[in-house]
Amino acid sequence: MNLERVRELLEGVRSGRVSVEDALRELRGMPFEDLGFAKVDHHRGIRKGFPEVVFCQGKTVEQVAEISRRIVERGADLLATRASREMYEAVREFAPQARYNELARAIVLEQVPKERLKGVVIVSAGTADLPVAEEAAETAWIMGNEVEKVYDVGVAGLHRLLGNLDRLMNANVLVVVAGMEGALASVVGGLVDKPVIAVPTSVGYGASFGGLAALLTMLNSCASGVAVVNIDNGFGAGYIASLINRLAHK
Amino acid sequence: MNLERVRELLEGVRSGRVSVEDALRELRGMPFEDLGFAKVDHHRGIRKGFPEVVFCQGKTVEQVAEISRRIVERGADLLATRASREMYEAVREFAPQARYNELARAIVLEQVPKERLKGVVIVSAGTADLPVAEEAAETAWIMGNEVEKVYDVGVAGLHRLLGNLDRLMNANVLVVVAGMEGALASVVGGLVDKPVIAVPTSVGYGASFGGLAALLTMLNSCASGVAVVNIDNGFGAGYIASLINRLAHK
Amino acid sequence: MNLERVRELLEGVRSGRVSVEDALRELRGMPFEDLGFAKVDHHRGIRKGFPEVVFCQGKTVEQVAEISRRIVERGADLLATRASREMYEAVREFAPQARYNELARAIVLEQVPKERLKGVVIVSAGTADLPVAEEAAETAWIMGNEVEKVYDVGVAGLHRLLGNLDRLMNANVLVVVAGMEGALASVVGGLVDKPVIAVPTSVGYGASFGGLAALLTMLNSCASGVAVVNIDNGFGAGYIASLINRLAHK
Amino acid sequence: MNLERVRELLEGVRSGRVSVEDALRELRGMPFEDLGFAKVDHHRGIRKGFPEVVFCQGKTVEQVAEISRRIVERGADLLATRASREMYEAVREFAPQARYNELARAIVLEQVPKERLKGVVIVSAGTADLPVAEEAAETAWIMGNEVEKVYDVGVAGLHRLLGNLDRLMNANVLVVVAGMEGALASVVGGLVDKPVIAVPTSVGYGASFGGLAALLTMLNSCASGVAVVNIDNGFGAGYIASLINRLAHK
Amino acid sequence: MNLERVRELLEGVRSGRVSVEDALRELRGMPFEDLGFAKVDHHRGIRKGFPEVVFCQGKTVEQVAEISRRIVERGADLLATRASREMYEAVREFAPQARYNELARAIVLEQVPKERLKGVVIVSAGTADLPVAEEAAETAWIMGNEVEKVYDVGVAGLHRLLGNLDRLMNANVLVVVAGMEGALASVVGGLVDKPVIAVPTSVGYGASFGGLAALLTMLNSCASGVAVVNIDNGFGAGYIASLINRLAHK
Amino acid sequence: MNLERVRELLEGVRSGRVSVEDALRELRGMPFEDLGFAKVDHHRGIRKGFPEVVFCQGKTVEQVAEISRRIVERGADLLATRASREMYEAVREFAPQARYNELARAIVLEQVPKERLKGVVIVSAGTADLPVAEEAAETAWIMGNEVEKVYDVGVAGLHRLLGNLDRLMNANVLVVVAGMEGALASVVGGLVDKPVIAVPTSVGYGASFGGLAALLTMLNSCASGVAVVNIDNGFGAGYIASLINRLAHK
Amino acid sequence: MNLERVRELLEGVRSGRVSVEDALRELRGMPFEDLGFAKVDHHRGIRKGFPEVVFCQGKTVEQVAEISRRIVERGADLLATRASREMYEAVREFAPQARYNELARAIVLEQVPKERLKGVVIVSAGTADLPVAEEAAETAWIMGNEVEKVYDVGVAGLHRLLGNLDRLMNANVLVVVAGMEGALASVVGGLVDKPVIAVPTSVGYGASFGGLAALLTMLNSCASGVAVVNIDNGFGAGYIASLINRLAHK
Amino acid sequence: MNLERVRELLEGVRSGRVSVEDALRELRGMPFEDLGFAKVDHHRGIRKGFPEVVFCQGKTVEQVAEISRRIVERGADLLATRASREMYEAVREFAPQARYNELARAIVLEQVPKERLKGVVIVSAGTADLPVAEEAAETAWIMGNEVEKVYDVGVAGLHRLLGNLDRLMNANVLVVVAGMEGALASVVGGLVDKPVIAVPTSVGYGASFGGLAALLTMLNSCASGVAVVNIDNGFGAGYIASLINRLAHK
Repeated sequence: MNLERVRELLEGVRSGRVSVEDALRELRGMPFEDLGFAKVDHHRGIRKGFPEVVFCQGKTVEQVAEISRRIVERGADLLATRASREMYEAVREFAPQARYNELARAIVLEQVPKERLKGVVIVSAGTADLPVAEEAAETAWIMGNEVEKVYDVGVAGLHRLLGNLDRLMNANVLVVVAGMEGALASVVGGLVDKPVIAVPTSVGYGASFGGLAALLTMLNSCASGVAVVNIDNGFGAGYIASLINRLAHK
Repeated sequence: MNLERVRELLEGVRSGRVSVEDALRELRGMPFEDLGFAKVDHHRGIRKGFPEVVFCQGKTVEQVAEISRRIVERGADLLATRASREMYEAVREFAPQARYNELARAIVLEQVPKERLKGVVIVSAGTADLPVAEEAAETAWIMGNEVEKVYDVGVAGLHRLLGNLDRLMNANVLVVVAGMEGALASVVGGLVDKPVIAVPTSVGYGASFGGLAALLTMLNSCASGVAVVNIDNGFGAGYIASLINRLAHK
Repeated sequence: MNLERVRELLEGVRSGRVSVEDALRELRGMPFEDLGFAKVDHHRGIRKGFPEVVFCQGKTVEQVAEISRRIVERGADLLATRASREMYEAVREFAPQARYNELARAIVLEQVPKERLKGVVIVSAGTADLPVAEEAAETAWIMGNEVEKVYDVGVAGLHRLLGNLDRLMNANVLVVVAGMEGALASVVGGLVDKPVIAVPTSVGYGASFGGLAALLTMLNSCASGVAVVNIDNGFGAGYIASLINRLAHK
Repeated sequence: MNLERVRELLEGVRSGRVSVEDALRELRGMPFEDLGFAKVDHHRGIRKGFPEVVFCQGKTVEQVAEISRRIVERGADLLATRASREMYEAVREFAPQARYNELARAIVLEQVPKERLKGVVIVSAGTADLPVAEEAAETAWIMGNEVEKVYDVGVAGLHRLLGNLDRLMNANVLVVVAGMEGALASVVGGLVDKPVIAVPTSVGYGASFGGLAALLTMLNSCASGVAVVNIDNGFGAGYIASLINRLAHK
Repeated sequence: MNLERVRELLEGVRSGRVSVEDALRELRGMPFEDLGFAKVDHHRGIRKGFPEVVFCQGKTVEQVAEISRRIVERGADLLATRASREMYEAVREFAPQARYNELARAIVLEQVPKERLKGVVIVSAGTADLPVAEEAAETAWIMGNEVEKVYDVGVAGLHRLLGNLDRLMNANVLVVVAGMEGALASVVGGLVDKPVIAVPTSVGYGASFGGLAALLTMLNSCASGVAVVNIDNGFGAGYIASLINRLAHK
Repeated sequence: MNLERVRELLEGVRSGRVSVEDALRELRGMPFEDLGFAKVDHHRGIRKGFPEVVFCQGKTVEQVAEISRRIVERGADLLATRASREMYEAVREFAPQARYNELARAIVLEQVPKERLKGVVIVSAGTADLPVAEEAAETAWIMGNEVEKVYDVGVAGLHRLLGNLDRLMNANVLVVVAGMEGALASVVGGLVDKPVIAVPTSVGYGASFGGLAALLTMLNSCASGVAVVNIDNGFGAGYIASLINRLAHK
Repeated sequence: MNLERVRELLEGVRSGRVSVEDALRELRGMPFEDLGFAKVDHHRGIRKGFPEVVFCQGKTVEQVAEISRRIVERGADLLATRASREMYEAVREFAPQARYNELARAIVLEQVPKERLKGVVIVSAGTADLPVAEEAAETAWIMGNEVEKVYDVGVAGLHRLLGNLDRLMNANVLVVVAGMEGALASVVGGLVDKPVIAVPTSVGYGASFGGLAALLTMLNSCASGVAVVNIDNGFGAGYIASLINRLAHK
Repeated sequence: MNLERVRELLEGVRSGRVSVEDALRELRGMPFEDLGFAKVDHHRGIRKGFPEVVFCQGKTVEQVAEISRRIVERGADLLATRASREMYEAVREFAPQARYNELARAIVLEQVPKERLKGVVIVSAGTADLPVAEEAAETAWIMGNEVEKVYDVGVAGLHRLLGNLDRLMNANVLVVVAGMEGALASVVGGLVDKPVIAVPTSVGYGASFGGLAALLTMLNSCASGVAVVNIDNGFGAGYIASLINRLAHK
């Protein structure tokens, strides 16, 4: 549920189409509607302007389908992350317009039309970082942004990054996705004067320790203006980038 | 790559004015030189809108004084972090208007008058976290923000945090400073719909491992919209918060 | 074996129904009865008032069945944790009243009727933490407690937790189960004046490092009255919570 | 959620007294404000039955004296942990009855007379663990317990521990303090059927890694009924032990 | 692409066989030719004198085949590391001369004939370290070196190592591959006066922590002249050894 | 250094038979060659009195069979650790008397008859530690010891350990195998006055971190006379215990 | 369990002299009391043949002096480790024959004359490792051994180690002390057929992590017959080496 | 001592100026000449062509002076690292031409004149990294190299690095020194086709964990041709760089 639905309800009350008691009942149900295995926080729709995403890892296909169905039926936008193709097939049965981004492992369905906001740029280092970059991109997109992608510009081939300098310069906020040594965030942070959200990925082997190396690199960035999210957390990066870009368009 | 220069080179080769070996050597050196670092540098002058801060840790009093003097003479704003009182005394000799925030261990001198922008809120958990919170506050202030401080609202006394809900709600961006278990960032992140910059502090003992516990807590935040900077990095948090708040006032 | 059986034996001796030598032989056999692969400590029955549970991880279906059978034949209560459904099927053959809690992965059979004691409340953060929460709940139940469950009240949606404040307030002891950043223990610990047993879970990814992040969070809790058990150790939490609640009903 | 207020709001909308936008704004702010933090705060006053302790580490002598003075003036009990002798001298000036436990580094002043409750036993392994054990003991004492001390019973000399078995058996709750390898908690946990609060200490060198070894030992205890607090956190152990013992005397 | 191809192009321009515009177009295409999933940096051919290798881990068979095909079609040398046999089969369809080193898990195809340079010696400790040693050997080979292999000379059998002293002494550069405790690098480093590139391997169990033990050993080597690459990074070691040996043959 | 050879060399130089450059070259190569590795190797043959074991992990069935066949053909004793049943089947084809200890995952064949030496006692904590304990037992057995086994005597049930005190007291050397918190080594070390070889196992979950907890416990043992081998290294413990017991029977 | 006491008890019950409840209570307390801790304690007196050492770290000069005085007065041998010169001065006042090994930081006083046993060899890598090596040497000496020292034979200069091969070969047990990468233990372990006790030291910097690197190296030793004690634990190594050497002289 | 001295000795033998016995005695003394606290390996002079440096950390002023004096008297070059000014004063008394590089904390005395070899370039990121960079520079200088320094070119200001591209391109080998996130090594490694020796420094705070972050970054470098030495090990980097540059000038 989003702000629009609460507004609709209030307008229904004002116009007399909806009784006070009915509105009350619906509002009360929002925060605590019980799905059995997970209480989806519809009230958050008011506060956050965006429905909760479904984090599919560790859930069964049935659970994902059931949670998604409720979201879809309410007319809200759906984003299911870390979803398998099998989960997508299950969702598609009741939401045929939903699409599946295989690389991002994300199910996406936009039901609330929005005007796209420019200014989110997603930068990634290597081919293997693409799943995380794409998860960030889908998250920013469903939250109403037009996403500019500058992929495969790792620091070992600096000319590729510099060849895209203009696109970086036009951002309001940049998401930088890199595994292995994660140096890209510092380099980008040194080139731009906009907030950089760095996402370490678990790409690598040996002393990358599942993304720890890239995480530490990014936390210790010598460039100012860089903040970091969890390893492989493309969703989190896309989310906060959206919050920031929204500010720029107020 | 500057196409015109490559074309010239090739025409030189064709006409025999340039030998193959000379052309080869020039091409090898080319990919970056033709970007013109002067342009990038000039860029930087404009781009950051703020002089480099002096990070005093590991520097002598003389070094801090000398670097600061140059900044002051250029008429720029000065922010010296992790500065001792002795360093401040040395700076005050040539910059009597500079002030010293003892808690933040920061020397601050504003020479460029600015209109303060509202919207940066700094939230901190315990008394021992104040030095980091104050460093963030001074950073945001010298970068042109009016800073709202919500201090001493750790999660063990939730009523204090909730009693300040209105102030949190009015932020464009929040800096959340907490040591020990660092849970405050998640709680604040769940209450607002604005970007949260979390700063773990090294406050604690035993299994806090110098701030590692709080750092991990914040990176794993179950609330969306939270990004993290290095342990005790109040400056970094104030800096990125300023970049974000500036976007909101474009 | 429980206290009752030893008393019976002694009464048998007093009444002459059981000879001294027979009683002696049976008593001697208690601590060291040899199962081949595992010496179940029946003597513990005296000391602890509760039979040893079967920790199924790393055991074969046959081993679990064999150990369980001996416990069941003795008339004791059975709790098998980390049990697969296949293990349950094997147990059900000789103990048809045993039930299987799929979520908790626990086999439970109560043979000694007890009056349930009120006062154990189990609080959990997210859907993915439920297996551990349920393991704690089953453990507390078989040890004679009536268990109150307050599930899915993670700190990112504080209103859900606060909406259950009364139920938390009525506890003698609380088990708080949370993964990811594990902040829930601190928040609950700040709201109540009863002992809180915190259980970090391995739920999360990246910098959660298999539950380490939540573990450190809980150990560093800024709230007083919180103690911690091992990652995913729902059994241990339910066990100590039972010991505490039993004190409250002495 | 305060239903009456929401109903009023809706009726205002229906009657046209309240605009849709105003109602929307109020609803967004609502979920927590209507919980009434005053009620929560009041709660807290009753609930803890004990004033906040002063954690002196990282505070100046003046700060400790000032905070302590306020507590003393209110007539409350005072416990200042990690206090230097110099801090004690400053406190003694206005609180001459306060005493200083040098070993525990604690300042203690009881102003509210209480009847001492039996049942808290504090067990410690080596001489070097005494400061932490004493901190736990002082905490439990000022919270109204009579404390039984079983010191210097490390597992390398098992006969000393076994020679004190009766005293362990009489406890309602045991605090076990040990550094180095921390094995004492498991051994005690295996001997008693009461809750054991284990406190790892930073005593040791080399691979003790500042108490990490003992912490891990205790978390992995093979004995049921053991929960753990932070390294060197004698206060935390004494605190939760008091909460538990209080239950036993309800 | 290598230096020779750029030289050819320039000579074509000089001779009039190639127009300036055609040369320009081809040169522009080099750095950014788009493969869809990965931009192979052909410009690197100029700078490095060696095409980028294909790191197969995390790529599909199709991706590896497609990237390899382009490299092969350009007439360049191919090295695909961490390749499965299935990937090799796919490559062999269009590059029948390619061979597969099963131990090294490497696909190798030399298309540019070179004179082999002597001086690279690869030393390894145990049988289980051979895959990494062989990856280093194949890398050095395809980069134009004749590789001397001194295998199975772990420090627990010092006589085997000492029996090969002459071969070690004849090296320009040594690659030392060892897992478990990784002591071989220090011993070799103490015997020779040439640069030693140490490669820790993930061979081991328990406290080897996936190669961390060997890595730390090598970084702390008491012998001068030792530098270290990532765990299991045979390719990286072979690569830098080639760069060094090339210097010796300038 | 072989003085005679150096003297000869110098005399050759003096007499002019050897040039300065030749002498220099020989001297440079000298320090190790003149030790005669053949002598060292021969040494080894005598010294160890036991053939190299086959560590099967990471080897194929064919490799294990081939290596084993050579050992068997030489008439030596065979110990293959971490062997699968399939490997055993392959070995049995040419060595029908070989037996397979399924629990220890060891293939054992004694071809050299020996008189068993008393004095090695192997103590283990829980059922899950048995594979490591049995590996230690088989190692000590094939090296000529009679092995006394005291299994399933974890510290949570101290009476079981104490009930076996006499058997512990009769040892020359004790191997103590324990996972989880690994406290057993300290307790045993405190009871006996003989060397204790402690073996941490990877048994456990959560904060046992694959055996790290038990390893640290054992390294920090407060009991004197305890030394530690790698996690799960039953072979290593059995081996050094044999070396020690052999000393006792000299 | 003392069977006679249990029989008596049962006969008391049968005869009515003992009530069921009393028997029950006694049985519950029984499992350990009937071991007779006096016997265990007496044991200890015999068993260790050596007084407890004084571990001075963390103790005051007065405490060390007081504990030492009691030991000296009893006529026992004294070993005080990690002792400052100031502590020695205090001890010397009542024990003028005590000597101070400055390097080992040990106070040593032999009051019980013994015949020295040959066979303990202490090997150390670098100058900085000497304090730990000397602590081991003093420990072995006071426990009755003649100690052979082979110092400064680090693996980077293998000729020095090999030049001492004969002395290594004559040992019954070797203590190998090394910091930095700790490779010496593996090399020595490969040369001899006697038990090797490895002591990692905290010598080093950077990635030695306070001795962790050397510790891991030694635990992962590819040589059989190596066991490890805690970082810098020269005492522990000397102690267990003495126990082993004593066996060889039985 | 270097090769020249051995040659001189041999020539003395040949000419009859030196007797065989005297030469023998001197040669024998080389490897094992005993300084008391440290055996300086003069034999290494032959093998390595460079005397052992004095690593001053953990040594007294007297020890450093004594070891240095012997080296100086032999006419060899002296490099003392991690030396205090006080140590320098002590060395200057007998070696007045020795100089002290305060930044590098190195004492340097060249007694053997050499022709400097071009080709070693030392690159460093920030001001705080200079001590380590200078230690590398002094090491390379005393070993006979002319050192090119490219300092203060951290990745946050890429234009400074790119402005020095020509100097990087002219290197035979590059030493890259960086703390904090250590990204500079990857960027430089991507720009050049020569071996890069990366030195992480302990510069930083919080999650830099004493240089661990930079170390991991460098080990995981996505650029080929990068190898790493220990944290703050400027000496080691300068040493191996010298070995490599020497190859290029053979």
